[in-house]
Amino acid sequence: MRGSLTLREISEQPAAWSAALQRFEKDAARVDRLFEKQAPNEVIFTGCGSSYYLSMTAAGVFQQVTGLAAKAVPASEILQFPESVIVQDTSPLLVASSRSGTTTETLRALKAASRRGIPTLCLTCAAQSPLARQADLALCSPKGGERSVVMTKSFSSLLLLGLLLAAQRGGDDGFRRELHRLPALGRRAVKVALPAMRDVGVNASCFAFLGAGPAHGIAWEAMLKMTEMAQRVAVAYHPLEFRHGPIAVAGPGTAAVLFGTEAAAALEAALVRDLRKYGATVVVLRDDWKTDAEADVEVVLGVDLSDAARSVLYLPFAQALAYWRAVGADLNPDRPRHLTSVVRL
Amino acid sequence: MRGSLTLREISEQPAAWSAALQRFEKDAARVDRLFEKQAPNEVIFTGCGSSYYLSMTAAGVFQQVTGLAAKAVPASEILQFPESVIVQDTSPLLVASSRSGTTTETLRALKAASRRGIPTLCLTCAAQSPLARQADLALCSPKGGERSVVMTKSFSSLLLLGLLLAAQRGGDDGFRRELHRLPALGRRAVKVALPAMRDVGVNASCFAFLGAGPAHGIAWEAMLKMTEMAQRVAVAYHPLEFRHGPIAVAGPGTAAVLFGTEAAAALEAALVRDLRKYGATVVVLRDDWKTDAEADVEVVLGVDLSDAARSVLYLPFAQALAYWRAVGADLNPDRPRHLTSVVRL
Repeated sequence: MRGSLTLREISEQPAAWSAALQRFEKDAARVDRLFEKQAPNEVIFTGCGSSYYLSMTAAGVFQQVTGLAAKAVPASEILQFPESVIVQDTSPLLVASSRSGTTTETLRALKAASRRGIPTLCLTCAAQSPLARQADLALCSPKGGERSVVMTKSFSSLLLLGLLLAAQRGGDDGFRRELHRLPALGRRAVKVALPAMRDVGVNASCFAFLGAGPAHGIAWEAMLKMTEMAQRVAVAYHPLEFRHGPIAVAGPGTAAVLFGTEAAAALEAALVRDLRKYGATVVVLRDDWKTDAEADVEVVLGVDLSDAARSVLYLPFAQALAYWRAVGADLNPDRPRHLTSVVRL
Repeated sequence: MRGSLTLREISEQPAAWSAALQRFEKDAARVDRLFEKQAPNEVIFTGCGSSYYLSMTAAGVFQQVTGLAAKAVPASEILQFPESVIVQDTSPLLVASSRSGTTTETLRALKAASRRGIPTLCLTCAAQSPLARQADLALCSPKGGERSVVMTKSFSSLLLLGLLLAAQRGGDDGFRRELHRLPALGRRAVKVALPAMRDVGVNASCFAFLGAGPAHGIAWEAMLKMTEMAQRVAVAYHPLEFRHGPIAVAGPGTAAVLFGTEAAAALEAALVRDLRKYGATVVVLRDDWKTDAEADVEVVLGVDLSDAARSVLYLPFAQALAYWRAVGADLNPDRPRHLTSVVRL
């Protein structure tokens, strides 16, 4: 069957999360030693493509939970515009993510950081990769490795490692407990997501993925899955930013998917009303807070998680949506056009 | 004539830049006093839509030129996820941009910052606006005001104020001299841009705007102009990021516009070759460095400016392109669908 690899890897995510959680526990003391020895005053999360998008969510959550400055930048920017990324006379730590541990720009960015004396940590599925060997510490997702080109279980399990890093350094046991609930909740999410997304946006000419705060990186990844697998036009925005111009193209051909956050719920509800007024099909994913906006498709997870932890559970829905739109268009999600597993320059 | 307002405002940009340069000189001492009194250790540039996109370029250049940490965030993120934006126990300064000085989220973000004791500066075309009155210091683009809905001369003149701020605080006279050359160079750029962009991408089903470093915010603004004015599908990426997935949709229906940077020239040339291989139409704007990649349309400015200063000169081309695609599709660039000059929540 077309896309059977991708489908299997989407379904295997909860098991990959369990394995990442277990492995992280073993490495937690080493993480603490690295941070305590280096005492960074900023953490720079980097990567390319999906790995950059997971860095967006990880960085925002890291700063929120630890109080330590954090930001996400594409690896190419570190190489080409280092003065715009790395502040003079500071002590950053670099967290570089790459499924394969061989992505050219990410590896070069890590080496460039090392040459400047910046300590480095990597998130990867390949413990023996060049990136893992060159980093001061490698955190691994042992079951994140994939045979398909597009990232699914590698993405969510590497993101989980980034969130565990935040919980560990922030000493936030409540957040850690939420992350440990994800494998069990994820099994249900995968089961629900596949049938729920089967017929969403079948006739849409454009998909708009919207997410604020920790959901922003999720929106970018959802956009990328749709682009890679289904070759459909897709864009990603902060929900309220979508109103400042891009909404000009919203109409009956648009499917808007909102990865809801509790922090932004009231203003997101107003946006949902606007989008429906313009004729867009609106899909909302959220926890079970009250809302007075009605979407065309509403997925209420009912998991009672923080915006940060819940962001991981949105991924099976984003992946399932792209998978079905690819299969429905007779495309093979396992073999997207123009792409290879690793981009080498 | 449809779009005559927008056309006039595109052409008036160099005059608006001259006025902004003159006004800034009068305010420079006040800028220095604010920074010296407050001694911020980070500058947060914010805004919504176009004003957020100019913040992207201004923030990257500010950090590069001054060595002081700077970042750009949408105003909505400051309101909804303050802990992910504002680092605890630091002393940031907020630079909020808004043409009208009345954009809801930007005004609320400025007020939220003030309540926390964070000093604020605004970039605006409306010196008597609520934003200008509430900021500790308002820098004004006196001829940036516009009658059309979409931002053109307001965008570039507010961006120029942001770059002047960087030159002033960095004590970088070379960069300041470059910025003072822009009005004269801009007159030529406007004259060249209008005929040059008239027939670009007429049959394209998707526009991809690509820019690294200081050109990244320009790529976002180009994407927004195309979306707002011409209602064409448009996306914006870092050039090398485009390769990590989004390139899956590049084909004969794609027009890719690269706002070239000297810092990234070699890797950008490789991307141009890939894009043409997949059948995309490629437009490259650049200064006159050597390149071994051939684009379908190549605009060599020949102005000998840094990547940061040249980014402003790319704007008339991006605006002219969107203008022509709107007019060519019988749309009125002066009155884009679903949009108003100011978004109020």
